[in-house]
Amino acid sequence: MSGAKRVAYLGPPGTFGEEAALRYAPESELLPFPSHAAVAAAVESGMADVGVVAIENSLNGSVAETLDILIHDTTLQIIDELLLPIVHNLVVKPGTRADRIRVIYSHPQALGQCRQFLERCFPNAQLEAALSTAHAVELALKHDHDAAAIATVRAAELAGAEVLARSIQDARNNVTRFVVLGTERRPPTGFDRTSIAFTFADDRPGLLASVLNEFAARSINCTKLESRPTKAVFGEYVFLIDFEGHQDDPPCRDVLDAIRPKCAMLKVFGSYPRWRG
Amino acid sequence: MSGAKRVAYLGPPGTFGEEAALRYAPESELLPFPSHAAVAAAVESGMADVGVVAIENSLNGSVAETLDILIHDTTLQIIDELLLPIVHNLVVKPGTRADRIRVIYSHPQALGQCRQFLERCFPNAQLEAALSTAHAVELALKHDHDAAAIATVRAAELAGAEVLARSIQDARNNVTRFVVLGTERRPPTGFDRTSIAFTFADDRPGLLASVLNEFAARSINCTKLESRPTKAVFGEYVFLIDFEGHQDDPPCRDVLDAIRPKCAMLKVFGSYPRWRG
Repeated sequence: MSGAKRVAYLGPPGTFGEEAALRYAPESELLPFPSHAAVAAAVESGMADVGVVAIENSLNGSVAETLDILIHDTTLQIIDELLLPIVHNLVVKPGTRADRIRVIYSHPQALGQCRQFLERCFPNAQLEAALSTAHAVELALKHDHDAAAIATVRAAELAGAEVLARSIQDARNNVTRFVVLGTERRPPTGFDRTSIAFTFADDRPGLLASVLNEFAARSINCTKLESRPTKAVFGEYVFLIDFEGHQDDPPCRDVLDAIRPKCAMLKVFGSYPRWRG
Repeated sequence: MSGAKRVAYLGPPGTFGEEAALRYAPESELLPFPSHAAVAAAVESGMADVGVVAIENSLNGSVAETLDILIHDTTLQIIDELLLPIVHNLVVKPGTRADRIRVIYSHPQALGQCRQFLERCFPNAQLEAALSTAHAVELALKHDHDAAAIATVRAAELAGAEVLARSIQDARNNVTRFVVLGTERRPPTGFDRTSIAFTFADDRPGLLASVLNEFAARSINCTKLESRPTKAVFGEYVFLIDFEGHQDDPPCRDVLDAIRPKCAMLKVFGSYPRWRG
């Protein structure tokens, strides 16, 4: 929770992005934008005070667009994180009966995450892609009681639709981690996480090993290690590490000083309080 | 190129999956399947001899579904790889004029990869999601000369559509790497690559460092290092490494023997000839 006044998120209203923004700052003014890049630009330009963006999902892994913005495009800081359970629901025009449903709309990712449910309960329904789960509800409502959408409960409420089945996702542990982007650095709280990205001038595997050894030598716990293609050359990577602690804590400052000379690029995305649920 | 008789791929015809399968085995019988998991199942069950699946893209990173199949679901071996440049085209019903296009269909990823072109040339067109680029062509052809699709040239040919603009993707270096799955191990060719996945029993960063040190000590070049969430617990990872050499080459056999005791799980996806273009 936060006192931020204007919170940018990936819209439209009724998506998980809005749900995350509402959890983060329930009293704030929420501003939907059409892409994660637009959310970052809204904060950079002062249209919004902070922006909430999805960064990874427990089933699908990282959100490439968000990582690429943090790596290449912005100097905004990560100032907070939150974890949101992803719950999918079958949403229909009020009065639609399950046995009349012939078309089911949703974002391809949501369709994929409900595959078992759809195969069991609607083996003959036609699955149609939509640009977002909220857009799927709009498309379903245009039909005459033979369509459904997979969406959030809030998207159903906003559109005046009915929730026919709840929590239809195949996996129980479907969680998305969101980060909050702001313009100012957060001071240490004693229970923080720091996110960094780095590259090497050449691709000797010994270099990454020596970076990891610096963390190990200081008993600093790394909570994430990932790589992303640099986009320039196939097989060249940007490495991403999240570790426990604040960049102003002495052991963390120390490890950053030790690895900086090994890297061609080292960028600190920010230090922020760890999510307590 | 290969002598495989029946090649499974992610359909429908006209997608990049078919293009990769055609390049790999132009004389073969091509069998489209609706998901990467279905492609693997077709090979496992003997319906197809080999399967061609996308594994990573130079702009978007890894194909999560393929990695998860290799990690969790199959004992098939990677027996080959190929790199395919991704070229998007604007496809219309014959006779459609550019200035009449109001709706543009494609897979959300293709829409994203052509964003600059769309913003410049069709700032007012409505973008609509489709489940594949081939499906997008079908949807566009249902319209009365006011719609377009983003798709392959072959998808246009198969559907009797016209290519209005070629190579409209924003980035020039958009390449997808495909791997070929089969049931038998490939013998060494002297110019091979090996793909492995592994996990640790606990998450000390020193463990990954010591694995990388084993490669460095033998001067074995790692061409990919990635991580994927285990899907069980947030913050637990499966690590993936591609390295140059065949698992039967003495230094590679040696490094696998050295790292096996450090890992909770170690799986060799296969050794296969490196792509020569």
